[in-house]
Amino acid sequence: MTNSELMKEDLKHIFHPCSQMKDYETIPLIPIKSGKGAYIKDFDGNEYLDCISSWWVNLFGHSNDYINKKIKEQVEELEHVIFAGFTHKPAVDLAKRLIALTPEPLQKIFFADNGSSAIEIALKMAFQYFKNKGDTRTQFISLQSSYHGETMGALAVSDTGLYKDIYNDILIQTIKAKSPALVSEDEAIEDMKKLLEENKGNISSVVIEPLIQCAAGMLMYDASYIKRLRKLCDEYGVFLIADEIAVGFGRTGTMFACEQAGISPDFLCLSKGITGGYMPLSVVLFTDDIYNAFYCDYNEGKSFLDSHSYTGNTLACAVANAVLDIFENENIIEKNKEKIEFIKEKTKKFETLENVVEVRQRGMVCAIELNAYENRRINLEIFQEALKEGIYVRPLGNILYFMPPYCFTFEQLEKMIEVTYKIVSTKL
Amino acid sequence: MTNSELMKEDLKHIFHPCSQMKDYETIPLIPIKSGKGAYIKDFDGNEYLDCISSWWVNLFGHSNDYINKKIKEQVEELEHVIFAGFTHKPAVDLAKRLIALTPEPLQKIFFADNGSSAIEIALKMAFQYFKNKGDTRTQFISLQSSYHGETMGALAVSDTGLYKDIYNDILIQTIKAKSPALVSEDEAIEDMKKLLEENKGNISSVVIEPLIQCAAGMLMYDASYIKRLRKLCDEYGVFLIADEIAVGFGRTGTMFACEQAGISPDFLCLSKGITGGYMPLSVVLFTDDIYNAFYCDYNEGKSFLDSHSYTGNTLACAVANAVLDIFENENIIEKNKEKIEFIKEKTKKFETLENVVEVRQRGMVCAIELNAYENRRINLEIFQEALKEGIYVRPLGNILYFMPPYCFTFEQLEKMIEVTYKIVSTKL
Repeated sequence: MTNSELMKEDLKHIFHPCSQMKDYETIPLIPIKSGKGAYIKDFDGNEYLDCISSWWVNLFGHSNDYINKKIKEQVEELEHVIFAGFTHKPAVDLAKRLIALTPEPLQKIFFADNGSSAIEIALKMAFQYFKNKGDTRTQFISLQSSYHGETMGALAVSDTGLYKDIYNDILIQTIKAKSPALVSEDEAIEDMKKLLEENKGNISSVVIEPLIQCAAGMLMYDASYIKRLRKLCDEYGVFLIADEIAVGFGRTGTMFACEQAGISPDFLCLSKGITGGYMPLSVVLFTDDIYNAFYCDYNEGKSFLDSHSYTGNTLACAVANAVLDIFENENIIEKNKEKIEFIKEKTKKFETLENVVEVRQRGMVCAIELNAYENRRINLEIFQEALKEGIYVRPLGNILYFMPPYCFTFEQLEKMIEVTYKIVSTKL
Repeated sequence: MTNSELMKEDLKHIFHPCSQMKDYETIPLIPIKSGKGAYIKDFDGNEYLDCISSWWVNLFGHSNDYINKKIKEQVEELEHVIFAGFTHKPAVDLAKRLIALTPEPLQKIFFADNGSSAIEIALKMAFQYFKNKGDTRTQFISLQSSYHGETMGALAVSDTGLYKDIYNDILIQTIKAKSPALVSEDEAIEDMKKLLEENKGNISSVVIEPLIQCAAGMLMYDASYIKRLRKLCDEYGVFLIADEIAVGFGRTGTMFACEQAGISPDFLCLSKGITGGYMPLSVVLFTDDIYNAFYCDYNEGKSFLDSHSYTGNTLACAVANAVLDIFENENIIEKNKEKIEFIKEKTKKFETLENVVEVRQRGMVCAIELNAYENRRINLEIFQEALKEGIYVRPLGNILYFMPPYCFTFEQLEKMIEVTYKIVSTKL
């Protein structure tokens, strides 16, 4: 079977995500046969370095031997069981470990399956917390250029026009505050304060992507904003929801991005890397105070009844535990520091290029903002040129970025940077 | 490790789905150590027949040897790859097979991960179809007592107060039509016609759970309603979305419930059983006409950009293919017929009991509606009594129901029915 045969079969039926399907008339869809470590390999035998961790999910490489071993063991024991009224060891272990890894105020955990659902759970819980206390607060604040997912609640608190605008008529309206990635930190904080003041008593929560607004184009801001936002939320008595779905599990250099601000959110949403890129799983961590607002006699009707069928999926929890094993056993966060420095050093030279606006980095995420070219989709040009050299990148518009799995060697990091540098400096 | 030890560890941190956590003070949470076939086994060595397929997901038993084999093979090859710009054989095979199994007009497929997301995709696509043609239709119609999921779009078209009412202030408002499970078919059709007429030009789609409104208490209605609804939707030019997340994959006796009406929906949402109860995966199937409304030059801005990270997850697709293999190789739909008849015969005697309102059945789903008892949570009583006899059921309020995996033997079906009969006839 060849690439073109499988592509033809695929395009008869499959509508791919985040795609204008007509683009596949000119840009071949690539059927991947296998993956190992940093590489994915197609049906024609070409290998590509997966420089964006297969959409920000992979951490320790494809078909990881240790994770595979754990999956094989788990399916022999228990693949899944209903999580209402029942539990299982992989979930209990995972809960305990995540709570030990995250800020101390986060003592409780709710399981779901995908990232959007985690956001919806946090939003619903924040709303219901106040509702349970007789206080109806219908509004949420999020940041301009934020992205929190695809379901209609998650979209409502998003501000990435590309994904959202067309649906505005079927979304609830929420409040957007200026983003510290787009204006100065002082201005962003002032704006947030103004909005909290204007809507006093009607806001249940503020939701942010800490440090990096990924989908908007890897827009970055400083931890000091989060610290100041935490204070504001306390002052106004509203919850702070940290959406670390993309940035959690070491992407920003620390295990979780919030650590860099030295604060705890009230809700922490995790997904993507949680299973090392193997399968869907998401969790929401929160405080005892929040938990207690739902804890009462059944007849009081204050339960939080959210329930996805695969909530707490046993297999996914076992995989997540394997991922945490690797973090511990291989001292990943510490080891990444050298790679982070390496990326920083090696990407400096992009700054000298005329068509480069900025090189920015937070931990293992590095973005190179290029000039926007009118009537040219340079993201596709870069994608295609890089593929020829065995490098897979997927720029967001004019933002070329790297988010490699942590298994990348220094040689692989260097190749990723050199190949794309050559393209940006000579082909655009 | 014992049940009580693990339960204690669990309750320190985990907020379970669809649970008032305080209930676990009196009703023990059960830690499951392993599962095999029809049974799940706890840490104290007790075994339970899983009579509700672990929340309607399991089809061929726990830790199924064939599915396990396929998972082990797949992780060695490729666990997951980004599904934008790339594809893989398990997804292409699954797409082809699902399209062959579903009504002919459904020729295209979009992958997601959980059921709620599939519903949101269908709603968003239906809305955007018209929007892409310059027609803004902001309304959706669903049925009274419907349940379509937990995210805010899926909740908005749901009508199960228990899960929804508390969130009304943060949901968009949608239109509810009378349910054929609650009023006569004629009355339901008349009401739907009236609503379609009143909101002419403003409705993009009607969404239903074909044949069984599961979460509302296994409320059932006839295929003839679906046939008439299909006609109405055509007459008014609105899409029909069939939510077969719970009822698909043989639950109602046919592979898909819509078959019994001899019609095709415009959108078909599938999840739960699609992976035989192993892990999250969902898909939305739709027509070429719908696909074509999004197919154009990128700059026209009509793409459908929805994108969950684990969309088209390779491992889950491989599992779904294994599930379809079992359906084919073991001739499951045909073989289930005898089990369906067996359940029908054996549950007849419930009808003679004074506290039984009705016994109803569609295929492998059988519900026994009991009298409601004021100030008694008989669902919990039945659950606990049955557990003592090694039977796991989870009545919805006063609705005792069975939705066993297809691997149940006749002896196991009989035990399930006999044990619960004894409880209903002597303990309530």
